[in-house]
Amino acid sequence: MKKLKSLDRLIDSFSSLPGIGNKTAERLAYSILNMNEEYVNEFIDSLKSVKQNVHQCPICGILTEDAVCEICASPSERETDKLIVVATTKDALAIEKSGNKYPYHVLNGEISLLKNITPESLNIDKLIKRVEENNNIKEVILATNSTLEGETTARFIAKTLEGKNIIISRIAYGIPMNGEIDYVDSFTINKAIDGRTKI
Amino acid sequence: MKKLKSLDRLIDSFSSLPGIGNKTAERLAYSILNMNEEYVNEFIDSLKSVKQNVHQCPICGILTEDAVCEICASPSERETDKLIVVATTKDALAIEKSGNKYPYHVLNGEISLLKNITPESLNIDKLIKRVEENNNIKEVILATNSTLEGETTARFIAKTLEGKNIIISRIAYGIPMNGEIDYVDSFTINKAIDGRTKI
Repeated sequence: MKKLKSLDRLIDSFSSLPGIGNKTAERLAYSILNMNEEYVNEFIDSLKSVKQNVHQCPICGILTEDAVCEICASPSERETDKLIVVATTKDALAIEKSGNKYPYHVLNGEISLLKNITPESLNIDKLIKRVEENNNIKEVILATNSTLEGETTARFIAKTLEGKNIIISRIAYGIPMNGEIDYVDSFTINKAIDGRTKI
Repeated sequence: MKKLKSLDRLIDSFSSLPGIGNKTAERLAYSILNMNEEYVNEFIDSLKSVKQNVHQCPICGILTEDAVCEICASPSERETDKLIVVATTKDALAIEKSGNKYPYHVLNGEISLLKNITPESLNIDKLIKRVEENNNIKEVILATNSTLEGETTARFIAKTLEGKNIIISRIAYGIPMNGEIDYVDSFTINKAIDGRTKI
């Protein structure tokens, strides 16, 4: 039986997406065949639109559809003496939901030897410039992930910002709120004990 | 923080795909932002191309990019006295891989009360016409799934073709080859015992 070239192309496209294996890609491609024209056109338009309209804010690196992101466009609404450094816009959004009022700096990834992500390929240069040119910033809060990559990135930035007369801090790691200790991994428990505070 | 409209649209598009939840849709949409232009254009083209070029064969219902599918275009290469009825083109492809030489008839689904799929919405009318108009067909092999829907569909077709002087058969169900009996569900074991043959 002859191969369906266009279907194979679509399967390839889907399977290039992260976490989508060959079987899932096949299922998704077949499902497109049963979708109505309108849906597929909307899918195509939204793919185009995302690539055309969404880009990183030139100041903080957050994803935005405007020339400068909403936070950098009106800094007066934020407490700009502190800066929260995160790996991705998604992380910034998660912190934003908790009611945070400090501005962000998005690195667009974390240092990783395995994935060949070097400090140069991240948004670190701009962070240093931003700190140097903006005397208002008194503290940089490192909120990268508590993984090997996140920890490496935090340490690299801390080292780079050394001697610049600002406070460099790392967010706390420990037992999650409402978390039960016997369900928490030992690495987290050690972190929680190391980070204990007096009451 | 302002919402990214085009990103939200893309998340909606992804989450309309079967088996893709909101969190996965979000992950996929963000991953598109990091893909290069070339990949996204290829993705868009393959979506367009699938909708434009792939359609069901007017004779057997198999998906094809030609006016008539390869099998129906050259029936002389097949043993056309038998016909295998399947739910989807994927099923036909799976059977094809096993070296089958009979032509297919693809129903494009299975009867389901829950999903509101009636016999009229399936490719059953064409199957009956095909059997009636083609005196060469001596046997219809029902290879729908061994699920409630597949079983219902098989019985419905068997009933509809009754009295047409052709053999109507159902593929065998039982322990899979290399399957260990203590790992097989009891429903399958019962099917295997019911379908026992003399040796």
